[in-house]
Amino acid sequence: MAGDSRPIGVFDSGMGGLTVLRALTARLPHERFVYLGDTARLPYGTKSAETVQAYALQATRLLLGEGVKMVVIACNTASAVALYLLQQSWDPVPVIGVIEPGAAAGVAATKNKRIAVLATESTVRGRAYARAIQQLMGDADVIQQPCQVFVALAEEGWADTPATMAAAAHYLGPLFEGDNAPDTLVLGCTHFPVLSRAIRQTVGERIALVDSAETTAAAVAKALAAGNLAADGAGEVRPMRFFATDSPERFARVGAIFLGRAIGADEVELVDLRNA
Amino acid sequence: MAGDSRPIGVFDSGMGGLTVLRALTARLPHERFVYLGDTARLPYGTKSAETVQAYALQATRLLLGEGVKMVVIACNTASAVALYLLQQSWDPVPVIGVIEPGAAAGVAATKNKRIAVLATESTVRGRAYARAIQQLMGDADVIQQPCQVFVALAEEGWADTPATMAAAAHYLGPLFEGDNAPDTLVLGCTHFPVLSRAIRQTVGERIALVDSAETTAAAVAKALAAGNLAADGAGEVRPMRFFATDSPERFARVGAIFLGRAIGADEVELVDLRNA
Repeated sequence: MAGDSRPIGVFDSGMGGLTVLRALTARLPHERFVYLGDTARLPYGTKSAETVQAYALQATRLLLGEGVKMVVIACNTASAVALYLLQQSWDPVPVIGVIEPGAAAGVAATKNKRIAVLATESTVRGRAYARAIQQLMGDADVIQQPCQVFVALAEEGWADTPATMAAAAHYLGPLFEGDNAPDTLVLGCTHFPVLSRAIRQTVGERIALVDSAETTAAAVAKALAAGNLAADGAGEVRPMRFFATDSPERFARVGAIFLGRAIGADEVELVDLRNA
Repeated sequence: MAGDSRPIGVFDSGMGGLTVLRALTARLPHERFVYLGDTARLPYGTKSAETVQAYALQATRLLLGEGVKMVVIACNTASAVALYLLQQSWDPVPVIGVIEPGAAAGVAATKNKRIAVLATESTVRGRAYARAIQQLMGDADVIQQPCQVFVALAEEGWADTPATMAAAAHYLGPLFEGDNAPDTLVLGCTHFPVLSRAIRQTVGERIALVDSAETTAAAVAKALAAGNLAADGAGEVRPMRFFATDSPERFARVGAIFLGRAIGADEVELVDLRNA
């Protein structure tokens, strides 16, 4: 078996999905990846479902043009509204979102069936995590907490500054008070793994922390194996390619925070999705 | 003299410009106002100058269709790239931006010719305040500080929570250390007046704080008088109208923080600017 050397495509509205790419490369070092951040049109979270579906189709078309063998939607908003559409449109290329893996891991971790989900305002409003969790565990109690300030803190790279600790106390303190508190916390936004140290310090060691970047990487590994799509890496670490729809310079600078390693602006290719 | 009862049009990419509207209504209680937030396409700050100019033209066209006698660009990004274009396009309807009034007030306030400007990343990168200040005071030293987290804190309504105080200390502490510190601080983003109490506590009483919403309102009052355009209010408080290009519900909820009073979702009319 020679293995499938085609790259895996990953897209997000911006740079937050690089936390998913980071988890993917850590878990699958022999795979090649192509990452697309639709930075000219972010945020997706404030846009209508129809618009986000159209954008997700364009992003996927670009990735398929790069010959990818699988597409990962590293964006909660797009996963919530476009996963099924993309799965239907490009069968048999597998398409994997971030919500189902995070929901499944939350369900596996909870003992008291009370699961807190931290997400952006729009993800909370769409109730995608609540629905996904309750499909797997009908009697689960899902407490959704919008955490908009976390997004800005993560983009600033303030992993555990006093401001981040204070914001974590503000959002999470009331959530974990009392005997009926959740025992599991799902990070339902691709930005939030950057803040996981501050979140862990705030909620304590007894709460199960589910990082949907990690769980998505696990789901991708499983799908590669199931579809006989894994690369046959002989110890070799494969290069990555980055595409952005606006300012490669900002993508490189802010993206480094999420990817956990430096990105050169010359590694980022500017693309226009409007005609994709 | 009967006075000019036509409304004044105000636009922004979103709700932040409502701090300018608040200052305007406080100063000009007899004027009528029409406010447009282009919420479907925010933020403007990450978009190209050409795109923002096109959006600003569309916004202005909608306001002129409502019969306004003056247009206020309550948005730093649009002021920086589209003020001159709008002034040329709709002469003799006066168009006023937020940057020049803030810059002029900063220059009037400083004694040591060192002025700090807090703004979004894109305003800092465009150097619009630095240019406007140095046109008025060639030897001024302008220290620009991007404060992205402030935007999220303001949108969350966290006027002076511990997280806001910690973020203010992070951004402003180093700026005002030492003998050569600025003596004047310009709030160069329409979101920031919401945080002015926390900012004041952090920098102390000796720093002159310039709120560009207040200074823009003063510039509008002056232009109304100069153009003989003021309304002839007989003690009457005039109603406001709101337009948004996305989710009237979110506009009403978040907008209330910036306007300083409740807004009913039914006061907000959904409009489409794409064909304006």
